[in-house]
Amino acid sequence: MLDRLGDRWTVLVLVELSKGTRRFRELERAIPGISQRMLTLTTKRLCRDGLVERTVYPTTPPQTDYRLTPMGKSLGGMVSALADWSRDHRDAITAARERWDDSDL
Amino acid sequence: MLDRLGDRWTVLVLVELSKGTRRFRELERAIPGISQRMLTLTTKRLCRDGLVERTVYPTTPPQTDYRLTPMGKSLGGMVSALADWSRDHRDAITAARERWDDSDL
Repeated sequence: MLDRLGDRWTVLVLVELSKGTRRFRELERAIPGISQRMLTLTTKRLCRDGLVERTVYPTTPPQTDYRLTPMGKSLGGMVSALADWSRDHRDAITAARERWDDSDL
Repeated sequence: MLDRLGDRWTVLVLVELSKGTRRFRELERAIPGISQRMLTLTTKRLCRDGLVERTVYPTTPPQTDYRLTPMGKSLGGMVSALADWSRDHRDAITAARERWDDSDL
């Protein structure tokens, strides 16, 4: 499972669903750059893993909701924390790389 | 940074160093299947990121220690938690996939 976290879209879908139930269009808007096809593929994989639950309501047009399962919630919390860490430390990592590269010259 | 966690060796080195300082040989033994070349590459990348610190002691033969930096510790703790989660939920995820695949037939 851990290797799947190398997939940017999987991480972003998990982070967004950690905030609450989302419709397909809401996920699409929340994740800039994701194509419909990739979002469909990513949510389908997460449903297959038992991490996300998809509910279709028989409205016109049909409404589709995605939410984390209890197992998905436990993972989603950790993945969100990692995404936060990554954002908060981006500059420090960039600075460390520059120091390293400079010291190599 | 998050995409690097899709790299199995990076994760395993971070998890092992979360337990404490390790020599090169100790890391090698703790991570079955990693080649010397891949371990060298992985630790070098983590040093460049500012997550791991490498210390060479002028003994004969020279001894090399690897340890997490404070920034590496904050990431290492989360990555270890994720690795534990992954191990603990492997069976549940496999079962979910089997249910999904069966229901597709």
